[in-house]
Amino acid sequence: MKAPGKRDLVSIDDLGSEEILELFRHADAFRENLRGWSHVCGGTILATLFFEPSTRTRLSFESAMLRLGGGVITVPEGSSSSRAKGESLADTVRVVGGAYADILVVRHPQDGSALVAGRYADVPVINGGDGAHEHPTQTLCDMYTLWRERGRLEGLDVVLCGDLRYSRTIHSLAYALGRFRANIITIPYPGFEMPKYVLEKLRKDYGVKATSASLGDLQDIVADRSSAAAYLTASKPHQQALFTELTEHHVDRIDAIYMTRAQRERYGSEQEGGMTFPKLSEASLRSEMFRDTRVMHPLPRVDEIDFELDKDPRAVYFRQAEFGVPMRMALMAFLLGKIQLDAKPPALRGEANYLSSVGGFVCRNERCITMGEGRRYLIPEFQVLAEQPPQLACVYCGRVRAPALVGDRTQNRCAAVGAPWIDAVAAADRIYFGSEEQAVAAGFSVDPEVR
Amino acid sequence: MKAPGKRDLVSIDDLGSEEILELFRHADAFRENLRGWSHVCGGTILATLFFEPSTRTRLSFESAMLRLGGGVITVPEGSSSSRAKGESLADTVRVVGGAYADILVVRHPQDGSALVAGRYADVPVINGGDGAHEHPTQTLCDMYTLWRERGRLEGLDVVLCGDLRYSRTIHSLAYALGRFRANIITIPYPGFEMPKYVLEKLRKDYGVKATSASLGDLQDIVADRSSAAAYLTASKPHQQALFTELTEHHVDRIDAIYMTRAQRERYGSEQEGGMTFPKLSEASLRSEMFRDTRVMHPLPRVDEIDFELDKDPRAVYFRQAEFGVPMRMALMAFLLGKIQLDAKPPALRGEANYLSSVGGFVCRNERCITMGEGRRYLIPEFQVLAEQPPQLACVYCGRVRAPALVGDRTQNRCAAVGAPWIDAVAAADRIYFGSEEQAVAAGFSVDPEVR
Amino acid sequence: MKAPGKRDLVSIDDLGSEEILELFRHADAFRENLRGWSHVCGGTILATLFFEPSTRTRLSFESAMLRLGGGVITVPEGSSSSRAKGESLADTVRVVGGAYADILVVRHPQDGSALVAGRYADVPVINGGDGAHEHPTQTLCDMYTLWRERGRLEGLDVVLCGDLRYSRTIHSLAYALGRFRANIITIPYPGFEMPKYVLEKLRKDYGVKATSASLGDLQDIVADRSSAAAYLTASKPHQQALFTELTEHHVDRIDAIYMTRAQRERYGSEQEGGMTFPKLSEASLRSEMFRDTRVMHPLPRVDEIDFELDKDPRAVYFRQAEFGVPMRMALMAFLLGKIQLDAKPPALRGEANYLSSVGGFVCRNERCITMGEGRRYLIPEFQVLAEQPPQLACVYCGRVRAPALVGDRTQNRCAAVGAPWIDAVAAADRIYFGSEEQAVAAGFSVDPEVR
Repeated sequence: MKAPGKRDLVSIDDLGSEEILELFRHADAFRENLRGWSHVCGGTILATLFFEPSTRTRLSFESAMLRLGGGVITVPEGSSSSRAKGESLADTVRVVGGAYADILVVRHPQDGSALVAGRYADVPVINGGDGAHEHPTQTLCDMYTLWRERGRLEGLDVVLCGDLRYSRTIHSLAYALGRFRANIITIPYPGFEMPKYVLEKLRKDYGVKATSASLGDLQDIVADRSSAAAYLTASKPHQQALFTELTEHHVDRIDAIYMTRAQRERYGSEQEGGMTFPKLSEASLRSEMFRDTRVMHPLPRVDEIDFELDKDPRAVYFRQAEFGVPMRMALMAFLLGKIQLDAKPPALRGEANYLSSVGGFVCRNERCITMGEGRRYLIPEFQVLAEQPPQLACVYCGRVRAPALVGDRTQNRCAAVGAPWIDAVAAADRIYFGSEEQAVAAGFSVDPEVR
Repeated sequence: MKAPGKRDLVSIDDLGSEEILELFRHADAFRENLRGWSHVCGGTILATLFFEPSTRTRLSFESAMLRLGGGVITVPEGSSSSRAKGESLADTVRVVGGAYADILVVRHPQDGSALVAGRYADVPVINGGDGAHEHPTQTLCDMYTLWRERGRLEGLDVVLCGDLRYSRTIHSLAYALGRFRANIITIPYPGFEMPKYVLEKLRKDYGVKATSASLGDLQDIVADRSSAAAYLTASKPHQQALFTELTEHHVDRIDAIYMTRAQRERYGSEQEGGMTFPKLSEASLRSEMFRDTRVMHPLPRVDEIDFELDKDPRAVYFRQAEFGVPMRMALMAFLLGKIQLDAKPPALRGEANYLSSVGGFVCRNERCITMGEGRRYLIPEFQVLAEQPPQLACVYCGRVRAPALVGDRTQNRCAAVGAPWIDAVAAADRIYFGSEEQAVAAGFSVDPEVR
Repeated sequence: MKAPGKRDLVSIDDLGSEEILELFRHADAFRENLRGWSHVCGGTILATLFFEPSTRTRLSFESAMLRLGGGVITVPEGSSSSRAKGESLADTVRVVGGAYADILVVRHPQDGSALVAGRYADVPVINGGDGAHEHPTQTLCDMYTLWRERGRLEGLDVVLCGDLRYSRTIHSLAYALGRFRANIITIPYPGFEMPKYVLEKLRKDYGVKATSASLGDLQDIVADRSSAAAYLTASKPHQQALFTELTEHHVDRIDAIYMTRAQRERYGSEQEGGMTFPKLSEASLRSEMFRDTRVMHPLPRVDEIDFELDKDPRAVYFRQAEFGVPMRMALMAFLLGKIQLDAKPPALRGEANYLSSVGGFVCRNERCITMGEGRRYLIPEFQVLAEQPPQLACVYCGRVRAPALVGDRTQNRCAAVGAPWIDAVAAADRIYFGSEEQAVAAGFSVDPEVR
């Protein structure tokens, strides 16, 4: 299926760090004269397949392709039509990625859908957001903005603020910051802290320890340490809001604050006794520490940044949106082979070690495409993250799950996790089950200690 | 925000009369060979942002931009997406009018939304219909059709027929006719008369007195004056329909009849005992007076013009729709700086005299954007139309409201409208309130006679 | 209305057989280098008006026009907007086919709507599917695929399988196969047999007798004649599925199997005790007879072809979808006059003999546009298929209906069908009625024998 040598952007990890920096330089060239590049992709067609609405992302890609001289076909909100008739995503991208279009941008509600699209389409696929999983071009644009505004990425002090728990944008950005060795300061809304697995991955994969500040007591901070702390003004009088001191990491000045939208759908409306959250305003940024800070936001913004701040030169969120166009021009021109990069692509993400499910071990993420429409045609695949005890990551959505039994594929025999004889089984011969029933159904004998 | 020198088309008043006539001549050139102008806007991107559906207007603009050689990105019905997530129109146009697009056409359900879009976007904004407020390109196309069909505008005798009460198209056209010194004859459906404020503005601003004819008694007209009167055939036998004589203005021949759709949603369906209205047919046009009349309609048509009339050479409504493309080509090429006009732009609509609300005086038009999403970020602004008694017009939606109190800004003192000492307060120092409570809340003392 | 010499594609019969083969050769040229033809339709605008959703058809046309260098404007799902305001299709195509666009593709839920669009638009109209009536470009693409894959059409042995009753795609394809003298073998799902009128038309118009095979008893076929019969594996164990021997037509090898989607909406879901149907899989194709068979499908596919078969070189359904783009490029370039064909166009489909309804004889197909929105502006028209007894075919939807009375237009006299004096009335003077009441209402005397 997948054409040899074809590059997709399913995850930000599909691009090497050097490649990313090269793309930034190409984006700069495009940006200098947005209207001067209509020869680059003349005759090329982009298809934007949006099975979930996203005006901003869709329009940004379409504008980028038009500015490159190509054409656009679109399914603006694919709820209807072929999908309603029961067509699989795999079929849709094979058709549209046939003679119809030369590159696809896909947004789809199921985690892992972008990988499916990339595997089945003959043409390059860009992930425009797959469920709660990844949204890599948002991250590319965020990093490009930081890089342009500050001239570098390494060693920057970046505050991530707001809903750090549910925002896939924040998680992807955090990994990218870690990869480029920026420092991360987290200031979550109460109850919206960064998940442990994200912090763990930052530590393990990039050696980054995110420094945590919290929205604390306003009086304290004003009294004690107004110069070393940032505070957020509350949007309601009874709200209190501030950063406490950044104790673990000495920070003289903040390079950027990345603010995110409170996901209202997650915690109920104000009327129902829900929380209101502080709003970032000019007053929040009076400390010397913020003299030169760039305020970023992925947009759309609701109430989390005061409209008055828009006029402040430190507010760069509209510029950040603008940068999305040249960045996406560079990305598409690259994936279409119209510009070449000197840097080497990243090593394959271990596809050789992928383990296809045998015996019924499946992902348990309800939003994963292998549990959704993929049931009809996808074979679950896992990556073995650890062996003692075994940890398997779904290749599609990344969700990690521990099997209950491990076995020997060559002997049709298995046992509960931890059984000593397993150590002697070669990695390639191992097989995993979620339950004894699965093992039996697959024709395996189960060691008695399991019972 | 607004780029210096940028031109928008929020209201038909944003174009000078000489500019309009120059645009007509450019439209003529475009029209002669629609396919010969793809060099004019090469590399330019139009974004059509339609927060309310309107196929015809949207497609007309998109076709015009494609014929000029540019590209198009579109939000065909913006109910979903960013707006659903709570984004303001101001944010949307700042993003889309950033790197995404070079010119915007916005249709939005709230009155005054086009002004908001024009103020916040960096690129030219064209009002594609803002609530019940304005739809200036429809008026431009109507006037262009009249001008082409009759060779001039001044002194034309134009009948406005149908729903003259609720149709913003009719109101805008009436003002434009007045501005170009055409004569207006109104023939409303019963209960759908032209509003007094429209007639008043026609008289005051342009010195035009609209002549009124009415749908009267069929026998009378047939018996007395079949040559001097037009009549409409009723679509149901029990309906009676005719024009009575045009008594106040001597009219030998009618240059054009502009027919509008009965707004069914306003008066209930026929089944519920609602009215049926007469239909314009060939029989309606047999009088010598109509020998050369042009029948116009903004479309879509429902039943108000008989389908048989389509073949009559006097029916020009499909040509009128066609003219929309070259007219919009000329408009966009002008706003994008691709063609220059010799005429001077109109004087600014008195922005210097705009009065920002102080103390809580607000617009009371429920459809006004200042009462809708604009509450979050717009400061109400008013234009002082009159002083004795004071009349304030909302800068966004045009609705006029009379304040209850007038005060002196420099002395924090106010009084009921009509208090004699107000006359001595300089215009720039005056302040207005809707109620005593507002004045007190704003820290003003209120003269006792108010109580 | 209709421009002289304008060509539409309302029905596959609008193209002559030689023209079709010439278009195939042009499609081949386009296909060889899809990106090399942007000069063919530069400056041309396609409007896709989809009053019913169809992603695949719409995107295929839009891609084809972009590859030809033209632009596209679209109404992706015309439920809203002008149509919601009550506009007729005739008005819509007159406006959009005015200055807006140079060619239209229309999909509409009412049978016969494409003919209406073709008659009212000034520019070429392509039927993108009109209700349950026709979908001629699907048929063109199917035939082009067969022609490319097998090098010819005449004498091919083609199996039509699945829902042969409700699929307009299958009916149109069957006629086209007949016209090019291919042999047809039908294998319907039980209860979804090919309708008699289709078989009759095949026999009468093209001299083709479709050979019928059936899904029978699995044991029989495996035991008796595994080499000469194809079988379908059941998707559920309790299902039985096979072809019985093809007794009436000796077939050594099958050139193509054309599979169609089970129209789930027609027979209820499985949960409600509905049927499940066999799935075409690799196992179904093991017979020598299928060694070189091409498996085709109009897509979208649901479950009727096993996903595993996708990798089989005989599965050509994705290639079939790809071929749609060059085929549609050839068609549009032809209708726009950008390429010329040597072959002569087919004779007009007897428009001279069309009979406009007099006296109220109307079509009884509830989905026919003359019974839908066309009531307001269309005059029913019929073609006289036979005289003894009379059979009238609706010109719009093709539905045949027998009148109750025949009369003499010149004498205002009529009688029950079969009255002997009718034979002496010249064809041009004959008139037909559905009932005596209609005849009387039209002012005709009715011969007493009717009573």
